[in-house]
Amino acid sequence: MVEAPDRTGREAILKVHIAKKELPLAKDVVIGDIASMTTGFTGADLANLVNEAALLAGRQTKLVVEKIDFIQAVERSIAGIEKKTAKLQGSEKAVVARHEAGHAVVGTAVANLLPGQPWIEKLSILPRSGGALGFTYIPPTTEDRYLLFIDELRGRMVTILGGRAAEEVIYSGCASTGAFDDLRRATDMAYKAVAEYGLNETVGPVSLSTLSDGGMDNSSGSMPWGRDQGHLVELVQREVKTLVQSALEVALSVVRANPTVLEGRGAQLEEKEKVEGEELQEWLKLVVAPAELTYFVRGKERLLLPLQTGSQ
Amino acid sequence: MVEAPDRTGREAILKVHIAKKELPLAKDVVIGDIASMTTGFTGADLANLVNEAALLAGRQTKLVVEKIDFIQAVERSIAGIEKKTAKLQGSEKAVVARHEAGHAVVGTAVANLLPGQPWIEKLSILPRSGGALGFTYIPPTTEDRYLLFIDELRGRMVTILGGRAAEEVIYSGCASTGAFDDLRRATDMAYKAVAEYGLNETVGPVSLSTLSDGGMDNSSGSMPWGRDQGHLVELVQREVKTLVQSALEVALSVVRANPTVLEGRGAQLEEKEKVEGEELQEWLKLVVAPAELTYFVRGKERLLLPLQTGSQ
Amino acid sequence: MVEAPDRTGREAILKVHIAKKELPLAKDVVIGDIASMTTGFTGADLANLVNEAALLAGRQTKLVVEKIDFIQAVERSIAGIEKKTAKLQGSEKAVVARHEAGHAVVGTAVANLLPGQPWIEKLSILPRSGGALGFTYIPPTTEDRYLLFIDELRGRMVTILGGRAAEEVIYSGCASTGAFDDLRRATDMAYKAVAEYGLNETVGPVSLSTLSDGGMDNSSGSMPWGRDQGHLVELVQREVKTLVQSALEVALSVVRANPTVLEGRGAQLEEKEKVEGEELQEWLKLVVAPAELTYFVRGKERLLLPLQTGSQ
Amino acid sequence: MVEAPDRTGREAILKVHIAKKELPLAKDVVIGDIASMTTGFTGADLANLVNEAALLAGRQTKLVVEKIDFIQAVERSIAGIEKKTAKLQGSEKAVVARHEAGHAVVGTAVANLLPGQPWIEKLSILPRSGGALGFTYIPPTTEDRYLLFIDELRGRMVTILGGRAAEEVIYSGCASTGAFDDLRRATDMAYKAVAEYGLNETVGPVSLSTLSDGGMDNSSGSMPWGRDQGHLVELVQREVKTLVQSALEVALSVVRANPTVLEGRGAQLEEKEKVEGEELQEWLKLVVAPAELTYFVRGKERLLLPLQTGSQ
Amino acid sequence: MVEAPDRTGREAILKVHIAKKELPLAKDVVIGDIASMTTGFTGADLANLVNEAALLAGRQTKLVVEKIDFIQAVERSIAGIEKKTAKLQGSEKAVVARHEAGHAVVGTAVANLLPGQPWIEKLSILPRSGGALGFTYIPPTTEDRYLLFIDELRGRMVTILGGRAAEEVIYSGCASTGAFDDLRRATDMAYKAVAEYGLNETVGPVSLSTLSDGGMDNSSGSMPWGRDQGHLVELVQREVKTLVQSALEVALSVVRANPTVLEGRGAQLEEKEKVEGEELQEWLKLVVAPAELTYFVRGKERLLLPLQTGSQ
Amino acid sequence: MVEAPDRTGREAILKVHIAKKELPLAKDVVIGDIASMTTGFTGADLANLVNEAALLAGRQTKLVVEKIDFIQAVERSIAGIEKKTAKLQGSEKAVVARHEAGHAVVGTAVANLLPGQPWIEKLSILPRSGGALGFTYIPPTTEDRYLLFIDELRGRMVTILGGRAAEEVIYSGCASTGAFDDLRRATDMAYKAVAEYGLNETVGPVSLSTLSDGGMDNSSGSMPWGRDQGHLVELVQREVKTLVQSALEVALSVVRANPTVLEGRGAQLEEKEKVEGEELQEWLKLVVAPAELTYFVRGKERLLLPLQTGSQ
Repeated sequence: MVEAPDRTGREAILKVHIAKKELPLAKDVVIGDIASMTTGFTGADLANLVNEAALLAGRQTKLVVEKIDFIQAVERSIAGIEKKTAKLQGSEKAVVARHEAGHAVVGTAVANLLPGQPWIEKLSILPRSGGALGFTYIPPTTEDRYLLFIDELRGRMVTILGGRAAEEVIYSGCASTGAFDDLRRATDMAYKAVAEYGLNETVGPVSLSTLSDGGMDNSSGSMPWGRDQGHLVELVQREVKTLVQSALEVALSVVRANPTVLEGRGAQLEEKEKVEGEELQEWLKLVVAPAELTYFVRGKERLLLPLQTGSQ
Repeated sequence: MVEAPDRTGREAILKVHIAKKELPLAKDVVIGDIASMTTGFTGADLANLVNEAALLAGRQTKLVVEKIDFIQAVERSIAGIEKKTAKLQGSEKAVVARHEAGHAVVGTAVANLLPGQPWIEKLSILPRSGGALGFTYIPPTTEDRYLLFIDELRGRMVTILGGRAAEEVIYSGCASTGAFDDLRRATDMAYKAVAEYGLNETVGPVSLSTLSDGGMDNSSGSMPWGRDQGHLVELVQREVKTLVQSALEVALSVVRANPTVLEGRGAQLEEKEKVEGEELQEWLKLVVAPAELTYFVRGKERLLLPLQTGSQ
Repeated sequence: MVEAPDRTGREAILKVHIAKKELPLAKDVVIGDIASMTTGFTGADLANLVNEAALLAGRQTKLVVEKIDFIQAVERSIAGIEKKTAKLQGSEKAVVARHEAGHAVVGTAVANLLPGQPWIEKLSILPRSGGALGFTYIPPTTEDRYLLFIDELRGRMVTILGGRAAEEVIYSGCASTGAFDDLRRATDMAYKAVAEYGLNETVGPVSLSTLSDGGMDNSSGSMPWGRDQGHLVELVQREVKTLVQSALEVALSVVRANPTVLEGRGAQLEEKEKVEGEELQEWLKLVVAPAELTYFVRGKERLLLPLQTGSQ
Repeated sequence: MVEAPDRTGREAILKVHIAKKELPLAKDVVIGDIASMTTGFTGADLANLVNEAALLAGRQTKLVVEKIDFIQAVERSIAGIEKKTAKLQGSEKAVVARHEAGHAVVGTAVANLLPGQPWIEKLSILPRSGGALGFTYIPPTTEDRYLLFIDELRGRMVTILGGRAAEEVIYSGCASTGAFDDLRRATDMAYKAVAEYGLNETVGPVSLSTLSDGGMDNSSGSMPWGRDQGHLVELVQREVKTLVQSALEVALSVVRANPTVLEGRGAQLEEKEKVEGEELQEWLKLVVAPAELTYFVRGKERLLLPLQTGSQ
Repeated sequence: MVEAPDRTGREAILKVHIAKKELPLAKDVVIGDIASMTTGFTGADLANLVNEAALLAGRQTKLVVEKIDFIQAVERSIAGIEKKTAKLQGSEKAVVARHEAGHAVVGTAVANLLPGQPWIEKLSILPRSGGALGFTYIPPTTEDRYLLFIDELRGRMVTILGGRAAEEVIYSGCASTGAFDDLRRATDMAYKAVAEYGLNETVGPVSLSTLSDGGMDNSSGSMPWGRDQGHLVELVQREVKTLVQSALEVALSVVRANPTVLEGRGAQLEEKEKVEGEELQEWLKLVVAPAELTYFVRGKERLLLPLQTGSQ
Repeated sequence: MVEAPDRTGREAILKVHIAKKELPLAKDVVIGDIASMTTGFTGADLANLVNEAALLAGRQTKLVVEKIDFIQAVERSIAGIEKKTAKLQGSEKAVVARHEAGHAVVGTAVANLLPGQPWIEKLSILPRSGGALGFTYIPPTTEDRYLLFIDELRGRMVTILGGRAAEEVIYSGCASTGAFDDLRRATDMAYKAVAEYGLNETVGPVSLSTLSDGGMDNSSGSMPWGRDQGHLVELVQREVKTLVQSALEVALSVVRANPTVLEGRGAQLEEKEKVEGEELQEWLKLVVAPAELTYFVRGKERLLLPLQTGSQ
């Protein structure tokens, strides 16, 4: 496996590709900024990005490639191309707009709480080629990140479940299948926290996947424990379920604490199909974070969750 | 995987194929309408559809391809070709006729409840090449759908189980093996609702299949949890069973509330083998929906089901 | 998979093969009757059947192929060729004769109860090439069947277990291994009723195999539930066991209600090795059906079985 | 799979091979008798047998092949060739002699009880090429057998465990590893009785292997129940264990009821290494069968076993 | 699979290879003795042994191959070649010396109890190429063995665990990882006793591996019981654990009863790195066997173990 | 598998490669010392090491290869190459510095307790190519080790968890995902102690992996126990969890007993990014070991852990 280059590396790679194509850049393009926006991109991804930005500028017969061209190229790479002909209609459009607004409101509350977190930059409900119906763009932090702290992890789970929370609150429980992918991501995150990063007190500092593989230097290829690990799997399952469920409850409390912003943003997004920039920031400034969010993200998990299964 | 084209895309593709074959169309053919009838068709499916419609018209030595030719071609593509020589007899014919009438009655009650749902268009008890003995045609909505709401999902399950419900009520419990495929579809729908869409309160917003795969970015190929997930599988199983069982109970209540329509439609279908159009609509106008249906589809699932297992 | 042709189709295929071979037929041959006797035969099976009938007639240097030649060819195709040298002896012969008589007595009682069921046509205890020691021939109904009703299903299970029931009653519990294949068929039938056709009240209208495969459109190839489905498998097992066991108990009650017919038929079959036609029908007219059979086959299963596990 | 020929078939095959080799036979050779001794032999086995008998006669420069040559050839084929150099010594020799004597005493008691059972013909403690240390020869019955009755099945299990029983009684519980293969055979027999032949009352007339394969016509290749069948496997395991354990207890009671024969036969066999013919029959006439054996083999299993687990 | 030759066979094979190489033998070489030392060697192993002995003699420029050359060649074949440069140091050396002394003390106590058991011949703490750090040489008995009696099996398990027992007693519980392979052997032995040889009263005379394979003549390749055998696996596990644990407890009692011999032998071995012959025998004569050993090896297992799980 | 050479062997191999390349060595290079630093290196690893040292010296245009070149080459081989451009920032840098300081403080306390343990030589927070963010270098002991004693094993587990412990104490429970690999190593060690080395009293001297493989000489390839070992797996899981959890608790107590050293070392490392040699040793001299550490490492595990599950 090739390691993805760090920010300095990405900057160097971008410069090489821009020079090779002799690409004329507008004054607003700072290559270091583009490097900051592309955490996790490989060398090949960056080459494609430069091509894509050049094409976008070309289609508009610009003489230079502008910052906006690079930003749109990054967006396409992450979320797919907007499908022009496949606009949402009726109740689907209304729900997806509130779903995205939910992410934005909850994500903002989380970012207020955790220093150094990125801000919501853009909301969109134009379906994209990858299958996504809506899109909430949260740019990466300017510095490359190597670690995730437990409060950040809890914060991200809450933000991810903000869309489902908005649906449940606004439609009185009549949610849609649209949170499918959000649930996948939240479950995955909770599983890793509990079973690989040792961040759950009940399960403790055990690495479940190491046990599943029969130890680290399992040269014999046999699997002494195999796939069915009775006791620990049971424990991990309960904790994963509890963790995801708690995150949704906290997301619900944030959503309930911000009815005006949520509905305002949702309605506006339903109408305009895209909201971004200052207009978006202005609204999101009004977001308030309920105490539950603070407890869950910064305090001990158990402060909030007296129901936690005391297994073992 | 190729994404199926949206309505606009399908319209364009149909036009290409019709032009390529220089197909003379009757005045009643609106290509946009055919596009609306073919949700989920791929480009290849649409090409076949145009061929099939041309052949059907040709066999009747028509000079132009009419709307009816396209409709029949769509029907064949969805349900298979009618088997001329394999007519149902005796009690089998009687039961299949009531089974299809059950779908129609229950589907109508559901459509009355949920705005924007399509209506039953045709019932038939001529066995088809794919193995189906009867056929209830419900055309797609005119707009492409990307999401399914929990009430629609519950409504569909009830409609799917309407055939079995009719058999049980009319024959006092002496049902047949004919609901085989309906059970498959209802079970599948319930499983997805509970284990992938997070639409069950007891299981909560967890994605079971993500856990089964060992997380989303399971690059190592190992399966830390594997296939046997004790606690959660147990929970999901109970909820799937409860959900399907409740849907059948609700379908039974709809069937019991409409004895005249059901028997009238059933007897007529047994005699004529095919009922459609205005004649069908006239009868179905008389369908009434019992309160249970409203509770189950629009209200909280638990209003109806005090027996629900309080696991965890 | 090729679908087996229906009766009309089989008749047409038989005519083609007979014409191709220019086969002279006796006046007693009605091709439509042969088509009725060969439900489930494929085109290739029918071609073989015509060949076989021609050979059988040829060996006896007949000038025309008679009805009896076709009947024997059908029999061979279903049950294998009689092994001339491998006659049963002593207690084996006695037991197999009573076993087949048991099928005949129980099958007759069931046919009396269910309109449209076929009658027992022939009993034989000449071992056949496929491994069968005895043979009870029940011809198919004249009409092709597409559905099985729950009462027919229960009736078939009782008939299938009639052989074992006869052994148990006559030999006071000292049964043989000869019911091996009957148990396989009865268990299979019970499993399908409970887990695929939704015909068991405790398990309900759930399709177990759909869940096992991870849903109907399991495009990812993963098996979220896999093979070990704790709760539902447990439930299904108990119900399958109860269903098969009840069918045997009912078969026992039929056998006990007909001691004279059973022993008479058994002894005669032991002596003559083959009984059929009017002689057989005459005896079987005396068969009486106890109330248990009616309850089990036509009434609700639970009327008969107060012990039924009330799980869930 | 090729079916093994029946007795008539074996006689014909033996004649063909003897004729083909122009083998001169002694007057004491009756080919029908050799056919009776070779139940289960295929055509190829019989060809080898004729060769082997010819070779044995040739080595002794006999002018004709005698009955004894055929008998020894059959023995070799069943149990392997005696290893001349690998004689048992000391306590091993003593134990194996008592082990074989145990089979003989218990087998005789069983044969006394069941009409038509074959008699013990020969005991030997010369190790053979297949790994067997001792050898108790029980010839097949003169008639081919197709069925096994439950009393025969129980009788065989008791005989098979007679060797272990003798070890336990004579050495006060200090048994050896020598019953390894006997345990395999007894366990296999008990499993089939319980799980395939439906001969256990608690498990009932269910075919476990049919369920394991997902039914008989499992054309889809999927295994809905798979390998782990909770409830029924549990039940079957308990009953298999109970059945094998009961058979050992009964074998122990037979051994304890015949101390003189057992020790006499054991000591003689230890000294002479081979006992057969009239000398053996004379001793075995003295064997007595305790009531437990009769109950277990002929009566209902439960008469003997009040401890039987009443699961379900 | 090739069967290993017996003693007589090995003697013949050795003579062939010695003759073929025209090897001059010293007068102290008795080929029958070498055959006795090489139980389990195949023909190829014996050929290698002769080569190796010749090489060892050659390196010392002897004119004849002496008995000592053959003995060393046998030792190399069993335990690997001594690694000259990899001597143990410090606490590792001390522990391994006590570990081997533990085997010697416990093995001697066992051999005192069981007639015909071989004696400890040599102790060494020079690491060998196969990975072994120490080496306790127990030559095979002069006669080939085909059976293992339950008391021998128990005795061997105690001897195998003598090394671990010595570590625990001398270092007050601070044992090392060095018993890794001993635990493997003891666990394997206990498993076979319980699950294959029927030597455990609670599990009874059942062959677990036969059940796991779905019976002996599992021609269909399916595994009706598969790998997860709930009830019996549970039972077997408990008994295996109890059996190994009991053997360790008994080994501990032997070690505790012989503090002087153990420490004397341990210290001497730590210093000299190899102890053998009369010097070793002199010391080991002082070994005493506590009553627990007698109970465990010769008496019924349960005399010693009132805690034994009385499962079912 | 090739066995890794011992220290004497490594010295010889290094000399060969140095001679072959005619490498001029500085006077401070003692080849025996380099051999001591490279426990576990294979011949190929040592050849690469010599090349790498030569290259490092060459890049600095030295005339001779110095000891420092060899040390850096060893470090690279173990931990990867430092990534110049990927420096940690902000809270990540602060946390990784405390994490490494935690290893150092806990490792020093352990080394104080156990004679012959190596000392911490270097701390670094420059990310390396293998993915490690920080690096605590503990050189191997001068003598090759073949055994691990239970106190060393417990000590290593405590040291490995020292990083996580430091995070938890300093950041009041807000740990990061950075202990991922430490948890893997600790879990693996605990698993081996409990399931393979028999060093846990509750599980006892059983080798779990031997059972999983169906015994040592599983020539038949079948797995009688397979992968799901109910009882013992359950037991082992509980004990592994308890053991890892206890080690973390003890590491926490060491960290809490040394607040000044930890924070001082952490802050200094955060600033300087690398601390080593005398400067490091000076600080670490102040480390104190709390009684818990002594109990856990040298005493019986249960002294410390009254909560230990008394299963069985």
